Amino acid sequence: MMNYNQVAEKLSQCLSTKRFRHSLGVSQTAIDLAVRFGVDIEQAKLAGLLHDCARAIPSNNLLPTAAAFGIVMNDVEYCQPVLLHAPLGACLAKKEYGVTDPHILKAIALHTTGGANLSNLEKIIYLADFIEPGRDFPGVDKLRSLALNDLDAAMLAAYDQSLHYVIEKGVPIHPASIEGRNYLLLQRQKTQCK
Amino acid sequence: MMNYNQVAEKLSQCLSTKRFRHSLGVSQTAIDLAVRFGVDIEQAKLAGLLHDCARAIPSNNLLPTAAAFGIVMNDVEYCQPVLLHAPLGACLAKKEYGVTDPHILKAIALHTTGGANLSNLEKIIYLADFIEPGRDFPGVDKLRSLALNDLDAAMLAAYDQSLHYVIEKGVPIHPASIEGRNYLLLQRQKTQCK
Repeated sequence: MMNYNQVAEKLSQCLSTKRFRHSLGVSQTAIDLAVRFGVDIEQAKLAGLLHDCARAIPSNNLLPTAAAFGIVMNDVEYCQPVLLHAPLGACLAKKEYGVTDPHILKAIALHTTGGANLSNLEKIIYLADFIEPGRDFPGVDKLRSLALNDLDAAMLAAYDQSLHYVIEKGVPIHPASIEGRNYLLLQRQKTQCK
Repeated sequence: MMNYNQVAEKLSQCLSTKRFRHSLGVSQTAIDLAVRFGVDIEQAKLAGLLHDCARAIPSNNLLPTAAAFGIVMNDVEYCQPVLLHAPLGACLAKKEYGVTDPHILKAIALHTTGGANLSNLEKIIYLADFIEPGRDFPGVDKLRSLALNDLDAAMLAAYDQSLHYVIEKGVPIHPASIEGRNYLLLQRQKTQCK
């Protein structure tokens, strides 16, 4: 199995400089959040580094590569193949980078859409991708503070922001994002009703 | 079977004046859209009139009434029982108002969430509820024009508006609305690819 530096070395040869710098940022932010919330730092560091490893696949190769890996696609993914870089990232992390930890692989697979009942590691990778130091959008500083304070509240804010963006863009919405957002809201409502 | 006037008379005794006036507005707008798009006028008129008939049920009775009618609820409906007034409206239209036409009943059942692969009658009732003359929100006039011009484009605009609203409100999103919006966008994309 490769160590972190070997993974980073190989990844830097596959991704653009900009994307590689983003990956280092996500890795560092994931470490920060892991320390804050008691998540395994090595898992967070490696999942953050590798989350976009499938971005090395040219966009017109995403559909055939996903099919070759046996990924079952829904309509939304079929029509927006860029979404496949997340599940494909998990496949490549395993095949090309020797990662076997299922928690890391799942965090990579879910980093774009989110989903219901996420682990803290999965939340951390989803959020780190949103708020790493290279990101700049209105409200990013508020989201950074929120993430260090309350993972679920930050996930909800990130889902909301991402949904508004996708609606404005006029593209289909991945059902996993809706399931993820609904899950957190319903969980909160159930807690309040107890 | 009751005629339109008998249905209106009975409905007026069950709903508040404001809600009854809204129902008359939806009925008239549904007629206008039916004429425009070649949909059966009697179906549109009656579905529009009765779409909110289950609003007569007190909110704390929605869950037990839905259970009594054998309606299968998802988590989102269970936590936001107000959404049940749509499928319950179909049950009451049949039981209390003698409506047997399945097209009318389905249009009532789907008028709040929308859904995939809607009939023109179903789109018309969903839209009429949004744009009847009593509605007043930023962009309503634009949506009125759009509805008279292109049902699918108006449905997309209505879904988008309703999703932005639900996100801002911080409540769960019904999956049927996402399925409906995705269906129209994917249909459009497939048409463009042909």
